[in-house]
Amino acid sequence: MKAHVYVTLKRTVLDPQGQAIHNALKKMQYAEIEDIRQGKYFVLTLGDSLDAVAAKNEVERIAREVLTNPVIEEFTFHLEDGE
Amino acid sequence: MKAHVYVTLKRTVLDPQGQAIHNALKKMQYAEIEDIRQGKYFVLTLGDSLDAVAAKNEVERIAREVLTNPVIEEFTFHLEDGE
Repeated sequence: MKAHVYVTLKRTVLDPQGQAIHNALKKMQYAEIEDIRQGKYFVLTLGDSLDAVAAKNEVERIAREVLTNPVIEEFTFHLEDGE
Repeated sequence: MKAHVYVTLKRTVLDPQGQAIHNALKKMQYAEIEDIRQGKYFVLTLGDSLDAVAAKNEVERIAREVLTNPVIEEFTFHLEDGE
């Protein structure tokens, strides 16, 4: 089973990396973009021994305790069946 | 309209960052994780002047030309209605 975790900066936190990309896009004439924010994306491959509920708990714990800095970041995740 | 772009290393490319996280998780007794790979995640806010087809083309072009290094990375994206 695979899990996808998306970690983004909280809305109130400045994102200089995203702003740099936004500025670059403006210079490249991509004028239709109003905002861009960068985050992190993780793909976790879980062992088959976990059922769906255990997998969800495990991934949520890893996302909260290891992958996210709770002061400035938040996360979402979803599990993918198969593979 | 918002667009979500996910950039990941190609499967054949070594991911030392993901491996470091995987090793850290193993030391923390998260034994059920078989693999972890890190990528980048972008949220683009598009102007309302674009229709769905134009937005798709614009986002795909930005993802391909700016956000992704085609030598080692690949991308997927999806558009989100509303907001």
